Amino acid sequence: MKMKLGARNCLYPLPTTLVGANVNGKPNYSTVAHVGIMDPGSVSLGMNKVHYTNIGIKKNKTFSVNLPSVDMVIITDYCGIMSGKKVNKAELFENFYGTLETAPMIKECPINMECRLIQTVDFPSHDVFVGEVVETYCDERILTDGVVDFSKVQPIFFVMNDRSYWKLGERLAKAWNIGKEFKSH
Amino acid sequence: MKMKLGARNCLYPLPTTLVGANVNGKPNYSTVAHVGIMDPGSVSLGMNKVHYTNIGIKKNKTFSVNLPSVDMVIITDYCGIMSGKKVNKAELFENFYGTLETAPMIKECPINMECRLIQTVDFPSHDVFVGEVVETYCDERILTDGVVDFSKVQPIFFVMNDRSYWKLGERLAKAWNIGKEFKSH
Repeated sequence: MKMKLGARNCLYPLPTTLVGANVNGKPNYSTVAHVGIMDPGSVSLGMNKVHYTNIGIKKNKTFSVNLPSVDMVIITDYCGIMSGKKVNKAELFENFYGTLETAPMIKECPINMECRLIQTVDFPSHDVFVGEVVETYCDERILTDGVVDFSKVQPIFFVMNDRSYWKLGERLAKAWNIGKEFKSH
Repeated sequence: MKMKLGARNCLYPLPTTLVGANVNGKPNYSTVAHVGIMDPGSVSLGMNKVHYTNIGIKKNKTFSVNLPSVDMVIITDYCGIMSGKKVNKAELFENFYGTLETAPMIKECPINMECRLIQTVDFPSHDVFVGEVVETYCDERILTDGVVDFSKVQPIFFVMNDRSYWKLGERLAKAWNIGKEFKSH
């Protein structure tokens, strides 16, 4: 039986990311899971306007999206609890820069995307930053036959409904393929 | 060692959804995994302009987001392979309507969100539809203590990198909580 839950967002689980930007000349990172893909080459970040990181994204027009692994869940959550206004998050990680020069990335994260800000969608309480992915870095160990293997990345998913992080399970099927087995009734 | 992959989008895995709209007076569904959350009450859908479903979303200013379970992977992929221009997808599911009256939903999916179109972000090849969640429906069996339990939903994740669907793993930790265990070096 269907139940009504009210206007409850259930578009979860979503990948938990650490979004990087230089703020006042120093790397800062914010934990962001209200993310998405808009077209194949771009990412969106729904970030509450209170975040310290937003200042740097607006100023530099660049940011990074770093994917932490499950073994980084404590520090990832810590970056979501503590504001860069109070804590120097540059000291938490080994930082590196790439092509864009102003988007700090986290060496400990197995995947890092450097992004150029191409659009900002304004919501009452949120800045939605849309970035074009300019360059992607990864640890060689997470590739299988040259392709990113998420069973090796071990991403952290976020669910708002139970305010929890979740792990990835196993590979289920090939896309644009398993559907060929469909037989109408 | 960090490797460069070029400008490769790695913001995966993302939840695979079946997006519903009435097109020419009939329910149609499109498989969409380029999704996201912009602010807590809204969802975004990055949909290639070739999709038949886009016509209905633009006309009615409403759509639904339905979350299929892993046991629906064949029909979910089938809806991504076949266009509503050629196949009557209304016949594939038991359809129902809610508050908005023009957003068809899929009874077989454990979660259904009715959305009102509030903004469209235009990309060269994609319409990015931003919707406000107006009402959410779910199967009673996927709740635990009144909260949506994704271990019962069994969502289907999509990864573009290996063109595969993936399953959800186990719960890892509490958000805004596990980070309190962090001790700086």
